[in-house]
Amino acid sequence: MGDFKLTSVDEFEAATARLLETGAKVGADSWQLRVKNQSPHCKFGETGVCCRICAMGPCRITPKAPRGICGCDVHGIVGRNYLKFTAGGAATHSDHGREICHTLYLSAEDGNYKVKDPEKLKRIAKEWGVETEGKDIYDLAHEMAELALLEYGKPFGTQRWLKRAPQTTQDIWDREGIAPRAIDREVSTSLHMTHMGCSSKPEALIRQSLRAGLADGWGGSMCGTEFSDVLFGTPKPIDTEANLGVMNAENVNIIVHGHDPSLSEMICEYADDPEMIAYAKSFGAKGITVSGVCCTSNEVAMRRGIPMAGNFLQQENVVLTGACEAIVVDVQCIFPALGPLSKCFHTKFITTSPIAQMPDSEFIEFHAENAGENAKAIVKLACENFVNRNKDLVYIPDMKQKATVGYSVEAIVKVLDGVTNSQVDETGTTKPLIECITSGVIRGAVAMVGCNNPKIRPDHAHIELMKKLIANDIVVIASGCAAQAAAKAGLMDKQSKDLCGAGLKRVCELADIPPVLHMGSCVDISRMMILAATLAKDSGLKISQLPVVGCAPEWMSEKAVSIGNYVVATGIDTFLGVDPYVSGSSEVAELLTNGVREWVEAAYTVEKDIDKLVDSMIDRIEEKRAAIGI
Amino acid sequence: MGDFKLTSVDEFEAATARLLETGAKVGADSWQLRVKNQSPHCKFGETGVCCRICAMGPCRITPKAPRGICGCDVHGIVGRNYLKFTAGGAATHSDHGREICHTLYLSAEDGNYKVKDPEKLKRIAKEWGVETEGKDIYDLAHEMAELALLEYGKPFGTQRWLKRAPQTTQDIWDREGIAPRAIDREVSTSLHMTHMGCSSKPEALIRQSLRAGLADGWGGSMCGTEFSDVLFGTPKPIDTEANLGVMNAENVNIIVHGHDPSLSEMICEYADDPEMIAYAKSFGAKGITVSGVCCTSNEVAMRRGIPMAGNFLQQENVVLTGACEAIVVDVQCIFPALGPLSKCFHTKFITTSPIAQMPDSEFIEFHAENAGENAKAIVKLACENFVNRNKDLVYIPDMKQKATVGYSVEAIVKVLDGVTNSQVDETGTTKPLIECITSGVIRGAVAMVGCNNPKIRPDHAHIELMKKLIANDIVVIASGCAAQAAAKAGLMDKQSKDLCGAGLKRVCELADIPPVLHMGSCVDISRMMILAATLAKDSGLKISQLPVVGCAPEWMSEKAVSIGNYVVATGIDTFLGVDPYVSGSSEVAELLTNGVREWVEAAYTVEKDIDKLVDSMIDRIEEKRAAIGI
Repeated sequence: MGDFKLTSVDEFEAATARLLETGAKVGADSWQLRVKNQSPHCKFGETGVCCRICAMGPCRITPKAPRGICGCDVHGIVGRNYLKFTAGGAATHSDHGREICHTLYLSAEDGNYKVKDPEKLKRIAKEWGVETEGKDIYDLAHEMAELALLEYGKPFGTQRWLKRAPQTTQDIWDREGIAPRAIDREVSTSLHMTHMGCSSKPEALIRQSLRAGLADGWGGSMCGTEFSDVLFGTPKPIDTEANLGVMNAENVNIIVHGHDPSLSEMICEYADDPEMIAYAKSFGAKGITVSGVCCTSNEVAMRRGIPMAGNFLQQENVVLTGACEAIVVDVQCIFPALGPLSKCFHTKFITTSPIAQMPDSEFIEFHAENAGENAKAIVKLACENFVNRNKDLVYIPDMKQKATVGYSVEAIVKVLDGVTNSQVDETGTTKPLIECITSGVIRGAVAMVGCNNPKIRPDHAHIELMKKLIANDIVVIASGCAAQAAAKAGLMDKQSKDLCGAGLKRVCELADIPPVLHMGSCVDISRMMILAATLAKDSGLKISQLPVVGCAPEWMSEKAVSIGNYVVATGIDTFLGVDPYVSGSSEVAELLTNGVREWVEAAYTVEKDIDKLVDSMIDRIEEKRAAIGI
Repeated sequence: MGDFKLTSVDEFEAATARLLETGAKVGADSWQLRVKNQSPHCKFGETGVCCRICAMGPCRITPKAPRGICGCDVHGIVGRNYLKFTAGGAATHSDHGREICHTLYLSAEDGNYKVKDPEKLKRIAKEWGVETEGKDIYDLAHEMAELALLEYGKPFGTQRWLKRAPQTTQDIWDREGIAPRAIDREVSTSLHMTHMGCSSKPEALIRQSLRAGLADGWGGSMCGTEFSDVLFGTPKPIDTEANLGVMNAENVNIIVHGHDPSLSEMICEYADDPEMIAYAKSFGAKGITVSGVCCTSNEVAMRRGIPMAGNFLQQENVVLTGACEAIVVDVQCIFPALGPLSKCFHTKFITTSPIAQMPDSEFIEFHAENAGENAKAIVKLACENFVNRNKDLVYIPDMKQKATVGYSVEAIVKVLDGVTNSQVDETGTTKPLIECITSGVIRGAVAMVGCNNPKIRPDHAHIELMKKLIANDIVVIASGCAAQAAAKAGLMDKQSKDLCGAGLKRVCELADIPPVLHMGSCVDISRMMILAATLAKDSGLKISQLPVVGCAPEWMSEKAVSIGNYVVATGIDTFLGVDPYVSGSSEVAELLTNGVREWVEAAYTVEKDIDKLVDSMIDRIEEKRAAIGI
């Protein structure tokens, strides 16, 4: 093990404190200050009992005013807010997926975007019953892209990807009337149901929340993940580094931030271009360093080993280093604060998507047709900006960890094949993993996902939960900002196997994997669904019987609620560290934490106490093991 | 004129007061009481400065806290809330249209739903380039329904109906990037843009608000209107009556309420059935009276002359009469209050749509396949319930007015043909109307639309505005609850011509029309768009040059904001009596009331003072006349 040591959250915070000193010098605002200004939060909003759905209000439920003007009670109001929140997330993830499909539609042999994984494309085509024989790969790509785009709006039928689920799961979705139809239709239906004077019955609202979630996870997000793999390559294990120390004071630093890999892939491409490196040098830099923030970071880390500068609540930190020439963003989870903050430094804040337009940014619209040209222009802009640095303000915390990332389902199966006796055993399955679980060498798995949220000490919940889980021989599969927290701490360094219980440690050694597996960005939670489905099929168990749970201890976005809904609706118990604005309704809270179990064989647990949260996950996993007699 | 006299709002209110006395006897709640409980409203919500888009909050902007935790400023927050509000409305109207398309898809010669206006279907088919020759009308109906459904989700291109607009308008939409793509896509894009960390630039948010609105008015709503006409017949002038006095104490009273005519058409069908009438008589009733509330009422009034019991804020009154055996609802604007209220009486509160499920209701799911059967069951249920009346509680205010309704664009053109010298002039155009406007006999037109809202004295604004407008020779075209307010007052009685200025009075006499023309339900504001487009084409003017404005003095729903956006985006100035939760942002308010004029040649005026509101509309109409030299 040598001198391997996790980086602690205390150390993260010390680095942040030092950066905030720089910020104070230049009069920068920060989320830490804004949290103070915004505290305490409005209790009506926080408990979900405030309604602004029509202009007769706003109304808010109190003991003296138990109904809104229309007569809606607290359960209807909370339920509608929850469904609207879900719809926002489902639309957002799915629209990301749609953009990927449009990019695939425009892919060309000599274009900006190419098909990097033709085998995966053909595999999906076969799955969808599309003839592949003798077809030009780009003709096939365009045909598949159009079919995928129709999943968003087809007049009849349910999502194609549902067929990937075990039959038992599909039967549940059919029985409960939650098999999602066209993706956008589920979004629109959700908004229709929550319109003034439509649904106010919690059961109806929560049922549609599950359906809209499924339209995301088994619809739009799955399109996003699968066709991103086709375009940019299916991730496989690759080494990278994480935390602010990946930025390089001597280089031009370009930060890519957001979610859609179409932009960042192209930026990475040009940042590697000898012409651009020479251009950077002409301004006195030694080279170009691209590093990432948020899920865009996960995307390029998994496919290119691009280092991860940080996760959601670290996005201001990259600017505060004083060494960021450009922060280039696509969509989602981008602080509008980056606009004014970048003005305190030389940093160029470059927005690129019509979906995410912000004040105080430079807008360079990015689409498939001009992607190369604009990516090059952005890289040049960053290089030219190197000379504008205020050297007195430059401070990059010397803090980073090694990480092995890129554990797509395909990669995991390949790893498992590596430990299979190919003479005797079937390859290409998850059976070796199932054997580890059945034998108890691994007790189970936790899918750890989600954001950061100042309501929880940032990264602390992610890291503490993961540490305790792996110590208990529970393997962690992580995505999104949770994955980055793990990487920053060192939990994706293979050396962290020593933090595991004996069983998981042995597996990590044998398979040569870290105990926390990086599975991608937040749309990639669809990968986790595929993995769960595969485990169920390979084991003959129902998904709900697997000793597997989901956890989002620091979530904050609408997307996270949409995800939670599809994970639960897939039969996987899900543990949250932040309440989704539903505590104001006993009926909605009861449904989510218990009632939905009757429909989909899983439910939510909301627990703000991190110790209790992890213990309840371990208990749940052990219960599930006991129930199937392993 | 004889003894014709408008019913005053004072008289409406006296009747309501009497009904509330009944309510008090049985311990009923009422919107009047709930308004008191909910007052004053939260100022943060009312000015639009509260943000609940992610779970880091809620945040609210104050001088001490000028930015949310993510750094979003007040303009971004208000703008996002406005776009989300619009998306809710666009999704809702459009989903109503989608249901109509699905019903058309299931229409059959011997089915529950038939094609009642095959000529209109063929006309639209030709417009869409679909071959009609030698095709069975139901084959054509199904083909067209599928094409229409694809308008909701097609991967490429913009809405088919846009081609109905004058070329100048289409050019504006293209230039401004607001020509709507697939309807549901615009909804999803709106939710994506308003997700945490996406757009916070007011221009981007308001632009998408216009686009989402256009996806409604020139997309989903237009599908709703046009294919409702195909299924249920294109409205033509028909006599009916309006206000609570249309209910009949001796009959079984069934109230239809909501928006989608598929349910109410079928209820009306069965209520006319001799078998059902005999059934009603077997319980001691003299017959069956179906009357309507809200836009469902507009739909069946326009096509069948079914009387209108009242508009939005009168929905509780129909139950308070003690003579309502069943209130049968479909979707939208249905008070959840009807559940508990109906329990205070013998009234059956019957919900029928999966979209609108409410506590304390009987849910009888209604769809094209079981429509006849279920409608019959509902009518029977109402008949059987007649014996459960508490006769002591029965009081129906003796208050109603005659009304002529059903002025679709086709009906207006036909009326105009009637005053045309067919030997000399072209028929089938709006030119006679244009001549009236050009000559100054009519000064202009106001499209008066929208809901009731307790923030405005109910119906008072609608009626007072209309009275002043017609007195000033401005013809009023009304839809939704505004139309019902007019009908209740008597402004749709042809005798009300005597309240007009000399010019409009002459036109009313010549054309045999009332001065306030009933154009339908709230989805039918798409009819107004078609009329404006036709007037522009027939006159050679741009829509924005026509002396025509829109007005929603008492609006309350998300749909109304979506409507406002498409009316403005079509080039028609729009006057609101209630602020759309945007007063907290100077930038958003400026854009809506002024800035958008640079994009689409029209903008909003928000004015709570009704006198000022009407004067500013008259001024605007006169300005527009002056600008084109008439």
